[in-house]
Amino acid sequence: MPSVSKKGIAMPESPIRKLVPYADVAKKKGVKVYHLNIGQPDLETPKQFWDKLKNLDIKTLEYCPSNGIASYRDKFAGYYNRIGIPVHASDFMITEGASEALSFAMMSCLDEEDEIIIPEPMYANYIGFATAGNIKVKPIPTSLENGFALPPIEDFEKAITLKTKAILICNPNNPTGYLYSKEELLTLRNICLRHDLYLFVDEVYREFLYGGKTFFSALNLDGMDKNVIVFDSISKRFSACGARIGAIVTRNKEVLAAALKFGQARLSPNSLGQIAGEELFDLGKDYYQGIIAEYQKRRDVMVKLLNEIPGVSCPNPGGAFYAVAALPVKDSDHFCQWMLEHFSYEGATVMMAPASGFYSTGNSGKNQVRIAYVLNSEDLTAAIKCLEMGLKEYAKVVVRELVN
Amino acid sequence: MPSVSKKGIAMPESPIRKLVPYADVAKKKGVKVYHLNIGQPDLETPKQFWDKLKNLDIKTLEYCPSNGIASYRDKFAGYYNRIGIPVHASDFMITEGASEALSFAMMSCLDEEDEIIIPEPMYANYIGFATAGNIKVKPIPTSLENGFALPPIEDFEKAITLKTKAILICNPNNPTGYLYSKEELLTLRNICLRHDLYLFVDEVYREFLYGGKTFFSALNLDGMDKNVIVFDSISKRFSACGARIGAIVTRNKEVLAAALKFGQARLSPNSLGQIAGEELFDLGKDYYQGIIAEYQKRRDVMVKLLNEIPGVSCPNPGGAFYAVAALPVKDSDHFCQWMLEHFSYEGATVMMAPASGFYSTGNSGKNQVRIAYVLNSEDLTAAIKCLEMGLKEYAKVVVRELVN
Repeated sequence: MPSVSKKGIAMPESPIRKLVPYADVAKKKGVKVYHLNIGQPDLETPKQFWDKLKNLDIKTLEYCPSNGIASYRDKFAGYYNRIGIPVHASDFMITEGASEALSFAMMSCLDEEDEIIIPEPMYANYIGFATAGNIKVKPIPTSLENGFALPPIEDFEKAITLKTKAILICNPNNPTGYLYSKEELLTLRNICLRHDLYLFVDEVYREFLYGGKTFFSALNLDGMDKNVIVFDSISKRFSACGARIGAIVTRNKEVLAAALKFGQARLSPNSLGQIAGEELFDLGKDYYQGIIAEYQKRRDVMVKLLNEIPGVSCPNPGGAFYAVAALPVKDSDHFCQWMLEHFSYEGATVMMAPASGFYSTGNSGKNQVRIAYVLNSEDLTAAIKCLEMGLKEYAKVVVRELVN
Repeated sequence: MPSVSKKGIAMPESPIRKLVPYADVAKKKGVKVYHLNIGQPDLETPKQFWDKLKNLDIKTLEYCPSNGIASYRDKFAGYYNRIGIPVHASDFMITEGASEALSFAMMSCLDEEDEIIIPEPMYANYIGFATAGNIKVKPIPTSLENGFALPPIEDFEKAITLKTKAILICNPNNPTGYLYSKEELLTLRNICLRHDLYLFVDEVYREFLYGGKTFFSALNLDGMDKNVIVFDSISKRFSACGARIGAIVTRNKEVLAAALKFGQARLSPNSLGQIAGEELFDLGKDYYQGIIAEYQKRRDVMVKLLNEIPGVSCPNPGGAFYAVAALPVKDSDHFCQWMLEHFSYEGATVMMAPASGFYSTGNSGKNQVRIAYVLNSEDLTAAIKCLEMGLKEYAKVVVRELVN
């Protein structure tokens, strides 16, 4: 029997999805599962998206250009210009979600054994894309105590080798919610220029800012047109994860030309998501203010309640809709699975993503979980109460197991 | 300035799409372009697909499971069972077109420097997927004179090394239209079992059979459950290329598990294409008979007219909707570009895909083109008349250039 590839074995399981079978079993037993494991917003996809689909007048659903539908790229560029980022429609390549954008950019800029520096905890799938391209992830630790801020410049300098080709950050950050300041981006700019590195920035959460904070896009860094590659998506901004429409945004034409060849090999991104999605760029301030107010309310509820649980610590995220919390457990993989397999409170349990999968350094973050606050405040309150009760019960179980 | 990766440079341009800029210029000059370059059917996507979209009652367009929507996989398995291929919904992984399926399967089964044997001319993007995974394509020549039939078993035996992990065929074939017989599949079975190889078969055109021919699926080969990986898509069968919904179909659970990890890294295939697409599996014999009759008519017109042009030779394809034709030119890349840049007949020109990009052996197929017969018979007749006139004019130009 032919064997699976080494790469197929090395590919990490998604920490966000690997416990799904346990959640399915819990649901079959009649237990309600609060999904805090996945960044799947519960907010509605705007009506304009659905209206466009209802009123389509197309006979044949054709391939679109490999870099996306021209009118979609025009509308997308218009949105960028309105938020103060001067880019042109020709600076975009439309992809199947930001996932494909990251994958194409990594392969276009890095060869096998090349290195990419990523502060950790990091979005787990970055490790997956790197593994698929046989690219080495060089993690730089950030700490919960420090709110997961950018590590000192010396940490980057120490990590850079002749094989280093890029630094990747997610801003605001998934999984930590940390919002990088303009000063931190300027620091990264200096490092990248000094060492001739790409600066990859995943900005899919750029509107999700709390407490009056402001966002600084890497595309507005001076003298970095050749270095900056930004990743974007309509998934989170418009609650349209299933559309799978993302983008590479860069003024570096050589990178776009290389990425286009990967894009041509897969022919085109899907057409429906773009056709309906382009309507969403007409949404005005009211739309964004509405969603930000909702997520800020959720964040405030969640962070307060989490920090009230004995032994739990969670920094206050400045953006996105995730937080990484330390729990009073030794192994959050075990705890998260236990919550699904063995625990319920008032007929419900909580699904979280064990943070270990967001670290590329072995054994880091073993007591942490990533929580996505994608439920309304009421459900979120119930979910965190459930987590609190679970932690209490789990502590007893652990003691019992130690005694026996 | 940071450099593009070696892989980004090595990625081939798509021979199907690389001449698009020249076609765009021709169109801007008011010249009509007959697109015989791309397998984009002009037939309508069935009404059931559009009706489903018009009647959607969904609030939030969510991610779906990484291996696809359960009801879609159920319906898909039902279609397989009805055409005599016993597979279960759990044997499918739904992907963004067959493109992603091929890419995931290659990475799940082959490591860097491993080898995959593919009869050539081959679907150009196979070379792209292999390049992306740093996998070596070992081409085995087939010949136009022989109608592009499977080469003798000795050719395979000679090509197999310790690094060989898989044989890949497309059946019926893109670009040649060749339909592999049951006997040829049994030959491949024997080779794969003897050398412990995967048999990858791209069956996206399995309904497109002409002259009463029948199709034998690799999934019905005995004793090959661990070896056979089939690729499928709704793009061609239902004229829904822009939906980007394909699949890996295999009974090898280890391969599916590895592919699922690549799938988890990109979260999920798009939801809309599956939601609307699952309606299409209810289409009955009438639908298939209608499209097959239409394509057979086109094939008959095209092959007859092509072979009537002096110096042109085109075998009669048994399936799919492509043919590879030899033209009386030295360099079809130059000729195809010239047709777009410098030629028109009755206000129109023809866009074809130069066959060089479908060969992995340098300089093979330089006098050949791939033609997709995805236009109605009237347009096809006009397009081939235009090609005939273009060849006449081109011969004069070539002579003039030789003289000057």
